[in-house]
Amino acid sequence: METYLRKRKVLMIPGPTEVSFSVLAAMSRPVMAHYGPEWTPIITETTDMLKKVFQTRNDVFIMPGSGTLSMEASVVSLFERGDKVLSIVSGFFGKRFRDLAFSHGAKVIEHRVTFGEPIEPDAVDRKLAQEKDVKAITVIHNETSSGTVAPIKQLGEVARKHDALLIVDSISSLGGVDLRTDEWNVDVNASASQKCIGVPPGLSLIAVGERAWESMKKRKSPIPGIYMNLSMWREAAKKAGSPVTTPSSLILGLRASLIEILEEGLENRFRRHALAGRAVREGVKAMGLQLFATKEEYASNTVTVIKTPRGIDDAKLREVMSERHGIMIGGGLGELEGKTFRIGHMANTASRTYIIPTISALESTLSGLGFKLEAGKAVAAVHKTFE
Amino acid sequence: METYLRKRKVLMIPGPTEVSFSVLAAMSRPVMAHYGPEWTPIITETTDMLKKVFQTRNDVFIMPGSGTLSMEASVVSLFERGDKVLSIVSGFFGKRFRDLAFSHGAKVIEHRVTFGEPIEPDAVDRKLAQEKDVKAITVIHNETSSGTVAPIKQLGEVARKHDALLIVDSISSLGGVDLRTDEWNVDVNASASQKCIGVPPGLSLIAVGERAWESMKKRKSPIPGIYMNLSMWREAAKKAGSPVTTPSSLILGLRASLIEILEEGLENRFRRHALAGRAVREGVKAMGLQLFATKEEYASNTVTVIKTPRGIDDAKLREVMSERHGIMIGGGLGELEGKTFRIGHMANTASRTYIIPTISALESTLSGLGFKLEAGKAVAAVHKTFE
Repeated sequence: METYLRKRKVLMIPGPTEVSFSVLAAMSRPVMAHYGPEWTPIITETTDMLKKVFQTRNDVFIMPGSGTLSMEASVVSLFERGDKVLSIVSGFFGKRFRDLAFSHGAKVIEHRVTFGEPIEPDAVDRKLAQEKDVKAITVIHNETSSGTVAPIKQLGEVARKHDALLIVDSISSLGGVDLRTDEWNVDVNASASQKCIGVPPGLSLIAVGERAWESMKKRKSPIPGIYMNLSMWREAAKKAGSPVTTPSSLILGLRASLIEILEEGLENRFRRHALAGRAVREGVKAMGLQLFATKEEYASNTVTVIKTPRGIDDAKLREVMSERHGIMIGGGLGELEGKTFRIGHMANTASRTYIIPTISALESTLSGLGFKLEAGKAVAAVHKTFE
Repeated sequence: METYLRKRKVLMIPGPTEVSFSVLAAMSRPVMAHYGPEWTPIITETTDMLKKVFQTRNDVFIMPGSGTLSMEASVVSLFERGDKVLSIVSGFFGKRFRDLAFSHGAKVIEHRVTFGEPIEPDAVDRKLAQEKDVKAITVIHNETSSGTVAPIKQLGEVARKHDALLIVDSISSLGGVDLRTDEWNVDVNASASQKCIGVPPGLSLIAVGERAWESMKKRKSPIPGIYMNLSMWREAAKKAGSPVTTPSSLILGLRASLIEILEEGLENRFRRHALAGRAVREGVKAMGLQLFATKEEYASNTVTVIKTPRGIDDAKLREVMSERHGIMIGGGLGELEGKTFRIGHMANTASRTYIIPTISALESTLSGLGFKLEAGKAVAAVHKTFE
């Protein structure tokens, strides 16, 4: 029954990712209650550290859930039937945000960007001028499906200009790519534990700014329910509490990871992820593969999306990577299934230790599947990038 | 920074509870992806074991969340605006179910039972006959705030008679008190990981039967959103998947606990909790304290709610228990705050090892606070019950 551990693969998928021993150790301690005098300093300290990572002085909540919860909680708490929402869609998760807004009754205007292409803030500006009365923009900071990054700073300026809220999904970027919640006018920043934060899945992380609270106060109908009701979370947090039972063991893991993140320093961490992203891209290009992102300056530093080369079966590629090399990489999502495959490099895996063997295994696998390449060239390119 | 562990208390609160070393060990293993060929046998095996604990052959889902999530997901998935729902309220959590149904647009009829009193199925029967067209009944199996148990079997018969769905919250009873989901006509059984299941908080567990699926199919409007949309969970589960990222580490902990639960055997486990409940009640009565439950045959076997004796400050009582004896017990909830205090005895703590020191500490604490009692009598009563 316990053989599964021997079969476990190294996670070079775009999350969940490999977590530190200190995180695992923290989670393996006896369970603590999620309230009371022993817990209060822990949750307070953890929330304060998380605020630094979110780069915000506003409210931050740690909810029991996945990244989708933080997206859906922002939709449920902010949007009422008929509210106009501009959803920027540049991949699978942009669609998810759009679908959530639509499903909860918003009047959704889709701003479609060809997957792999960068988002143009000017085009969003024009769309907002044309539509008028748009209450909020939803956008994915780091689109894990297409491997591209959104220009949040510029979108924040555009949102302010049109008096629209900016709701950002930073699930696969928080703690790995610079995202200045307050400075860049991000009103809600929705994230999760299992990517660049380096904690197992199970925690939904969300930052909510003053303009978002003001907007909630102006609602005509009350926010439905408890679980996703951000105003209840705010109320309970005033006494270091929560409206529902929170996952204390995972939060101890988060605390351990945040200590490491702040010890490393955000700037250093962003630099490390940038280097890791460049190294993977150099390796991929040296193999003769093509990035899915059309402009490398908008390519993600936490996940690289690669076009599946002609004649290669993407499922077979991933199977050999996993079975022969013990490394799990990701397949394409949604309409990119089969056409792309993905390598995650986030938190601990954004390092030479993980990337060199991954690129080496990819070279070997592709070569074995009949793809023509010059053996060792990609690994050399990665090595050189790290030197 | 790491001193908090020395300050950790033994959890004799009504959840979260003390978990087994095997659970902690499972959670401290390197993270696994929540999909793929390594994960599929694990989630399949875990779900199958969980079905046995739920005593169901129908669908069971493991969602990232707290107990409130499983309650709210059943409300969101089943109720449409104007649906008539009978909410049985015999404590704080019955109110929560009522509020969730109301908040999501149901027309809620409250069936109020004096807290501490048993629920009378005949009275529910009469209410249903009088109201007509009630779509569903919500009820808490084990009301953690008042320490009473609902007669689910009889309520299941009443629900069937009136063609109403029966939605049960078994958050603090699943795995500790007999609850035959299928046999007793429970259409949705909403639970969580951190009580009698013996896993840290963070997993919402839910069983959904055929009548509930049929009801969802007849909805006029689609179920809103993704996170709480049970039909999406069902669809994804067909391929051993989930609509959102699931907490793989906590699920490995759940798997470890379910192995232990099934090794112990459900019948043995229910008997152990029944004995633990009786032992605590005997101890409490021997101290001259009063149970909040008016009829002992309806008293909970997983949490004992005790009336705070006159002249005793409940907060002070809990503080001394915690600071001097290292044992955390619970305060009263909602309108019972101050008037009651609570001892949890669930999963591992439903045992002599945990109960004897708790009752000993309670004797000592109450005595120190000026409450007149005969020293050692309560501990002797507990000991005798276990012999």
